[in-house]
Parts: sequence; structure tokens; C-alpha cells
Amino acid sequence: MAYLNRITAQKLMQAKGLDALILFSPEAFAHATGTSPGVATMWRREGAVAVLIPADPDMPETVVVSDLFAAGVRRESHIQDVRDTPIWVEAMTLADPDLDGSVAVEFAPVWGSAHRPVNNDRPETFDPDACFRHLRDALSEKHMQASRVGVELDAVSAQGCPALSDALAPAQIVDATAIARSLRAMKSPEEIALLRSAVRIAETGIAAVRDAVTVGVARSDLAEIWKETVAAHGANSPMTGAWEYISVGPDPWGGDAIAKSGDLIKVDVGCVMKGYTSDTGRTFVVGPPRRLHTELHEALMTGFRAGFALLHPGVALAEVHRATQSAIRSQGLAGYCRGHFGHGLGTGPGTEEWPFISAQAETRIESGMVLAFECPIYVTGVGGMIIEDQIEITDAGPVSMNSLSRDLVSC
Amino acid sequence: MAYLNRITAQKLMQAKGLDALILFSPEAFAHATGTSPGVATMWRREGAVAVLIPADPDMPETVVVSDLFAAGVRRESHIQDVRDTPIWVEAMTLADPDLDGSVAVEFAPVWGSAHRPVNNDRPETFDPDACFRHLRDALSEKHMQASRVGVELDAVSAQGCPALSDALAPAQIVDATAIARSLRAMKSPEEIALLRSAVRIAETGIAAVRDAVTVGVARSDLAEIWKETVAAHGANSPMTGAWEYISVGPDPWGGDAIAKSGDLIKVDVGCVMKGYTSDTGRTFVVGPPRRLHTELHEALMTGFRAGFALLHPGVALAEVHRATQSAIRSQGLAGYCRGHFGHGLGTGPGTEEWPFISAQAETRIESGMVLAFECPIYVTGVGGMIIEDQIEITDAGPVSMNSLSRDLVSC
Repeated sequence: MAYLNRITAQKLMQAKGLDALILFSPEAFAHATGTSPGVATMWRREGAVAVLIPADPDMPETVVVSDLFAAGVRRESHIQDVRDTPIWVEAMTLADPDLDGSVAVEFAPVWGSAHRPVNNDRPETFDPDACFRHLRDALSEKHMQASRVGVELDAVSAQGCPALSDALAPAQIVDATAIARSLRAMKSPEEIALLRSAVRIAETGIAAVRDAVTVGVARSDLAEIWKETVAAHGANSPMTGAWEYISVGPDPWGGDAIAKSGDLIKVDVGCVMKGYTSDTGRTFVVGPPRRLHTELHEALMTGFRAGFALLHPGVALAEVHRATQSAIRSQGLAGYCRGHFGHGLGTGPGTEEWPFISAQAETRIESGMVLAFECPIYVTGVGGMIIEDQIEITDAGPVSMNSLSRDLVSC
Repeated sequence: MAYLNRITAQKLMQAKGLDALILFSPEAFAHATGTSPGVATMWRREGAVAVLIPADPDMPETVVVSDLFAAGVRRESHIQDVRDTPIWVEAMTLADPDLDGSVAVEFAPVWGSAHRPVNNDRPETFDPDACFRHLRDALSEKHMQASRVGVELDAVSAQGCPALSDALAPAQIVDATAIARSLRAMKSPEEIALLRSAVRIAETGIAAVRDAVTVGVARSDLAEIWKETVAAHGANSPMTGAWEYISVGPDPWGGDAIAKSGDLIKVDVGCVMKGYTSDTGRTFVVGPPRRLHTELHEALMTGFRAGFALLHPGVALAEVHRATQSAIRSQGLAGYCRGHFGHGLGTGPGTEEWPFISAQAETRIESGMVLAFECPIYVTGVGGMIIEDQIEITDAGPVSMNSLSRDLVSC
């Protein structure tokens, strides 16, 4: 299912005087089409796929995708205008093969068929120029050949950009990375459901790790328990992965430490559901916490409460950053400074996505965003600590998707 | 351990009239420094890390990396000139903390220390401008401020390129993606050992899948057996991942098919060792193969033999492509066309890396390359088939790293 909102897209394009938007990243493709971009995007290079979205929501979108994945897009996407380009993979169909027949006879009808590439040639990997030509043709057919086109330039390499500019001329290319990010930051109900189920499974893993914390347990043991627990709970779901940053003991960047009495256990983990990653953090202590542990965790919690209270539509993310950092600093951490206290979530190459809850972020919170909100500290000599929830922004304010206690739990 | 060969780098730079090379991709960073590029590269954007390599091998390299990972680079890399930039993560060290002390007292000495960021500010994520300034300063110190600098522009976004050009001016930026790729294509003995151990573990998984093939087994069962087997065999190795493209039955792109008598089972899989992925493919059949299966597999095998015989230093990859494709076509597959019959292997974002064994590839094979050499066919209505070995190129010719039979094994 496609998640891109054409009305929002229109509004964002009109604000920048754009006639159309071209998306190139695999995550933007999946978001706009509701289907897989396919293997040709493995290198994350421009021209393996593309989606052209006119500002006018009544004008149809155009998709460019590999011949191997075009059938899937035609079957599953709402977008009707699907144009394909050849990739390196040799694939074909035999409608009713005689398995006892010979290759020469059975395959003979394949070679002349209309769907074979002209001249029987395939590119080394994919053909960005063919993709750009499709885009130029589509612009021309929509009478936009001389228009102002926003491009997700963040997903175009400096090496490949000149060929794109040349192919689309006289259309004028404008950087529209910010628009592409904004469109993905607002989540549909289906995306929210995926992120919710991902965090639900992640919490079963965090709980299992918590229950396994004891003197003598190794970091690698806890990592294995995390992995096995979420694999078991995610077995009948579209879970596509899981990741963990678990630390044990006084070195937050240490290797496979063995837990000792009084050690901090930091659990910062996520499950990936149809490409959407969750992100949640909790902190445990082996046995009773010491004063420094308790005060540190309370400092983070003070920040968490201050920031959480501001996660309402209309509030600038910079304001959340300022309130969170000030609150933490007020608890004896006078010089604590953190670049961001959380981020968007999605299907991108990293576990963190735009927007960031940073001092620089003028972006205002909107209903429909899902944000990871986190207050971490990493102190070599003491250990790692984190409080991190995954939060749905609603008209009424923040709704955490987590249910585990945020307290510093003594195990 | 760093794997980049400075003498080769000098030769490649001199051929293009370059005074220095700047690498930005996380895989190029790891290759040139022998250490981790760190979390700030999760978005694969320019300016999170960089390595500056003068053409003159007697001039020292410069590394730019995040403050969080700088200590690791200083400890583990041969490169002495390490410059850091702040990232979003708040991290600090308490040398001898009193765990029963208060946060205010214990942390007070941290804030004024020399290693804290100036103005106590951290960027939202990372600071590419700070990275570019370090590069400009390093060029200036090496009296190369007006030189011709090759840049891995494939790893620079069109969005970020203007800031890079401005920061390095008057140095002239030239695309050196091809040089960056060439340097990684030649493997060191340590990299070859990693790829060899990765394929050894992968073959235990392929053998387990082969042994599990029977009427009624599901694709998901075979995938699970693959995963569990390689996880068990890789338990005490630096294995960081594994992937599989296993297909069952007449639809090579099908979902969770259940094996029937006469079905093809295609197993195209890899294990990842310290980031280096292996790539190997084998094909099985449930019960006795039919004539079409046998002839198809023999066609692929004919191609494999023809191409394999040419995998010697000095041969152009295009020649290998031509011989392989001609041989397959001669076996009744008159119109078979494939973009490439294999590729380099490494730590990049995809499972396939430059160079490709393609019709366009003028690159000549060199001793020290490791290539996946593959002859696949995907026929909806019949099934998927592949023969793929991982091959070390030596002065004496190709040495396969695989030991499993390449035959169409009846299970």
C-alpha cells in the first residue's frame, strides 16, 4: 500500500513553486508506490528506480522500475503509469513447458517475444540514462518539459547528477530533499500499526534480557537472548530484522563484558517490520543501584518528562530539545550536551531518520508523526544509560507505544 | 588492519594527474584505515568521515572521523594524523568515579576538559562542514591547497557537493570513483582469508539445505535451516550476517512454496565476515531431474566452464562475458542475455561490487582480485537455476574457494 499523501505533497510543492517532484531513494519509492523497488537499488544509486509526482493531485504519477520488478508494481501499486528499464538479470516465462522436452524447442518462442530487450542487450547493472529518458518523456507528455521540478538530490550522487540535469533539460531541477523527507515523516495508520507491532515485539525481547540479567551473564548472552526472543515472537509477523546496542558494565563501548554486581546494563534495540524499524531504550542495574546510578538516571528522567510534555502538535522540535537539555543540566550535569534527543523512524538506511529533535530543528511537530524520544548518557567508567520511547503524536499529544517501566530496574 | 596499497594508489593517481585522493564512503574508510567509520556513517552521506591520501606514498594520510570513534582510530590505525569532528552523541569519561558520590561532584571536572566541544554544542547528526575544513587544512599543510584532488564522488550527494567544492577551493575536484573502486577490488591476504572463511561457513549451510530437500519441505523451512546452520558454524568467528535467495519450485520469484517431486531448488547465499560478504550458488532437484532441467543445467555449466577458463590475469572481463554468454547460447538458449556473469566482493551496501564481468567491462583481471563468477537463469514455469563460485585470481589462474559439487544434485 502506498503511503504518500498527494494533498500534502501538493501543499509542500506549491510552497516552493514546484510543478512536480521526482523521488529516487528506495525508501521514497516504496513509500510512494506501496511496492518493492527491487534488487537494482542495492547500491542506493540514482536511476535504478524513480517516481514522478505532479503537484496537481489530479494528474497521475509515473513510476520507473526494473523490468524484473515491473510486473509486481503493476499488480500491487495504485500507480498505473509504470515504465520499465532493463537490468542485468536474465528472466523469462514459459507458459506451459514440457519438462521432458528439449531446451532448444521449449525456449525458442521466448527470444522473439515483445518483452525481450531490444538488441538482446542488458546493462552491466542498471541503466540510469534509460530511467532519466522515461522521466523526460513523462514530463513532456504532462506538458511539464520546461517546468520547475523538485528532485530528491540527497539520493542523487554528485557523479550521476550532470546526466540527470542534461536529460531533464529544459526542466529546471531544484533540490527537494526536504519535501521528500517531510512526506515520509507523516505516518499513515498502516505505518503506525507496523511501528507499533515492531515495538511490541522489541519489548518482549527487552523484558527477556531484563529477566536474564544476573552476575556472570555475558553481553553476548544477553544479545543472544534478545535475538532469540524477538525471532520467536516475530515468527508469524512480517518482521524483516532486529538490531541491538546492548552494553554491560562500566565501559559503554566495551566488548563482551561479563556482568558484575553493580554493573549497568543499557539496552537500546529495535525490530524491523516490513522495513520499518522500532527504537526503544531501557537501563537495568545488577543488584541495587549506587547513588551515582540513581542520580544519573533521575537526571535523564527529568529530561524525559520535560521533553515529553512538549511533544504536542505545533511545538518546534528545537523547543523540545532546549527543555530536555536544560532539565538534564539542572540535575548536576551542567555541561551535558546532546545533538538530538530523538528522531523520526522509517525504512531508510540508518535506524534514525529526519526529523531530529535538535537545537537547530525549526520543524514543528505534527499529528501523525512517530518519533523516538531518547535521553541517553554514555560514561566510560560508569556505563551506558538510556530512556527511550517510541511516540505517536496525536492531536491530544504524545502517546507512547511502550509499556515497559522507564525506571532504572534493579535485577 | 588497513588494506589500501599506497603504491597502487600512487600509480592510479599519477595516471589521472592527481595529487591526492579523498575517500568518503564507509567501506573506503574501513579499507584505508583498518578501523570502524562509526555510527555517523549510517546515512551514507559525505562528511561523516573522510580519508585524504596523497599520491606521494611518503606523505602521510589524514583521517577525519567523529569524536566518538577517534580514540579507536588512533589506537588501531597506522594513520597518525587523525582529526575529529563532533557528532550528536554525548559521551565522556570518569577516570575513577565514586559510585556513592553525587552527580554534581563527580561530573564537575568533565565539563571544562579540553576534549569537550567548544561552546558545548553538538550538531544535529554530524558536521560535514567541519570535516571539509579539516580536509582543506590538511591539503594546505601538505602544500596542496591548489592541487588536483580526486574525490570519490559516487559517495557524495548532489545536495552536499557544492559545499565540498567551496570548502576545498582553490583545489580542483575531479571524480575519482573509478580509482576508489580499483583500490578495493585488489584484495589483501587478510581480505582473501575473510572471504574464504565466509564461503566455507556458507557451504556448510548449503550442504544442510541440500540434505533437507524433500517432498513437502517449505521454502521457509530451508531458509531457517540455512540461517541456523551458518549461525552455528559461524558462532566463534567474526561473522556479522548472512543472507539468502532460496527459491523452491517453478516460480523463481514465488513466496513460501512447498517442494513437490521434480521441483528445482535454487540456493544463492552468502555469509558476511567482518563486513565482507561471500556469494555462492548451487541448484538441486527434488527427485530425478527431467530432461529440461538437465539440459538447462548443462547449458549453464557449459558457460561456467568457458568463462572459468578465461579467469586469468590480463584477460579483459568483457572477454569472459562474451565467452560465457556464447557458450550458454550455443546450448539451445539462443537469446539468453545477461548483464553480468559475476562481480567483485567487499563491504559495500550491496552483495555485488565493482568490477562486473560484463560486456562493457574493459577492466583486465588482476592477480589478487576475488570474483563471484555466476551462471544463473530464472524461468517462471520451470524454476531458478544457478552455478556460482567465489574465485581467487592468482598468477596461475582461477582458484575456486568452493568445494561443493557444481552439479545439479538430485535430492
